[in-house]
Amino acid sequence: MPKTSMLSAVEPFSPSDRDAVYNAIFTRRDVRDQFRPDPVPDDVVTRLLTAAHHAPSVGFMQPWNFITIRDQTVRQRIAAAFSRANDEAAQMFPEQRQSAYRSLKLEGIRKAPLNICVTCDRNRGGDVVLGRTHNMNMDLYSTVCAVQNLWLAARAEGIGMGWVSIFHDADLKAILGIPNRIEIVAYLCLGYVDELYERPELEVKGWNRRLPLEELIFEERWQGDG
Amino acid sequence: MPKTSMLSAVEPFSPSDRDAVYNAIFTRRDVRDQFRPDPVPDDVVTRLLTAAHHAPSVGFMQPWNFITIRDQTVRQRIAAAFSRANDEAAQMFPEQRQSAYRSLKLEGIRKAPLNICVTCDRNRGGDVVLGRTHNMNMDLYSTVCAVQNLWLAARAEGIGMGWVSIFHDADLKAILGIPNRIEIVAYLCLGYVDELYERPELEVKGWNRRLPLEELIFEERWQGDG
Repeated sequence: MPKTSMLSAVEPFSPSDRDAVYNAIFTRRDVRDQFRPDPVPDDVVTRLLTAAHHAPSVGFMQPWNFITIRDQTVRQRIAAAFSRANDEAAQMFPEQRQSAYRSLKLEGIRKAPLNICVTCDRNRGGDVVLGRTHNMNMDLYSTVCAVQNLWLAARAEGIGMGWVSIFHDADLKAILGIPNRIEIVAYLCLGYVDELYERPELEVKGWNRRLPLEELIFEERWQGDG
Repeated sequence: MPKTSMLSAVEPFSPSDRDAVYNAIFTRRDVRDQFRPDPVPDDVVTRLLTAAHHAPSVGFMQPWNFITIRDQTVRQRIAAAFSRANDEAAQMFPEQRQSAYRSLKLEGIRKAPLNICVTCDRNRGGDVVLGRTHNMNMDLYSTVCAVQNLWLAARAEGIGMGWVSIFHDADLKAILGIPNRIEIVAYLCLGYVDELYERPELEVKGWNRRLPLEELIFEERWQGDG
């Protein structure tokens, strides 16, 4: 194999390495309350963001930025923006579900010692981006892949992570100085954890149940209702 | 700890398990051409889709479906839909980049023995979904997290995967019988691989370069141009 081909032989992972990957996937949780207060060291943050940066990106566009937030005052303002949006959210649910909704803790903005806002610069690759020509969402999706890499790497490091989505973007942009042309994809709360839910918290708390996987798989074409 | 709390003690992964997770992240590639023709066994496909199904989802909505496609005739039709869209795509680039674009292989639809179309049912949780109240993209993003789980699990299994995004959705929906109300998030090509690029293929082939991570990280607030 000539060196310039840049192809290397690969094999399936060993059973124990494979199980480690599945273990990260199956035990990853959306953490809202189990954060310890001790800081995440800089070298660990760098490992997590390096994992995020090695996500697939459409046209190798790497459209993401990562704003790390540790300042208490900033997190206080962001928590207030969440609270306002969350009050609006509660009122959108049918009356019989509002008290259940309000009883759920949906963010760890102040409790988690590290917050990370992940953004997508939709113009980074110019107007025409390889692979985005027919689906303009692809750069946003690339950025989500970075978030999921970060989440799984965090699990392996013993760090819990929660994704907070109940905000008005304009509030977050004002607080963090994010330009209008930049899209906010995720606001993340991170910190070390000593315990995690055995199953997703919204399942444990009776908000929703796990769907049977076999009902979600179709062969060769869509089946069922149109 | 009372059993009903459903919280379990967790620790950081052992160094070797942690390295396995990072190894999956760093050696994952968007594969277009290295697929072996031998089929992916059903039990392995089930493991991959179980990994996908354990992605985080907004409001525990689990909005995804997975259409597995192995039939040659179906894949032939999908490859033709790709070709038409890819010809349009090539013409969108500046003239001096068109020949470089056309020289890239961007799909393994017929070469990969298994294709999977991943969709998002935006109505699965009803109109109001916890966590989607202020960002209607969140269910699409959940589905992308499922794709990234699948990708990393595939890497651990020795299976390469490529994400093909150059389609008109209407073409794919017609071929696969997907209802209009369902959103196509990803069309994936999978198969065992014996070799992978050491770096992203679009970097190796000079289409784009890796951005320095440190330029993508900001502290406390956005820095730079508005």
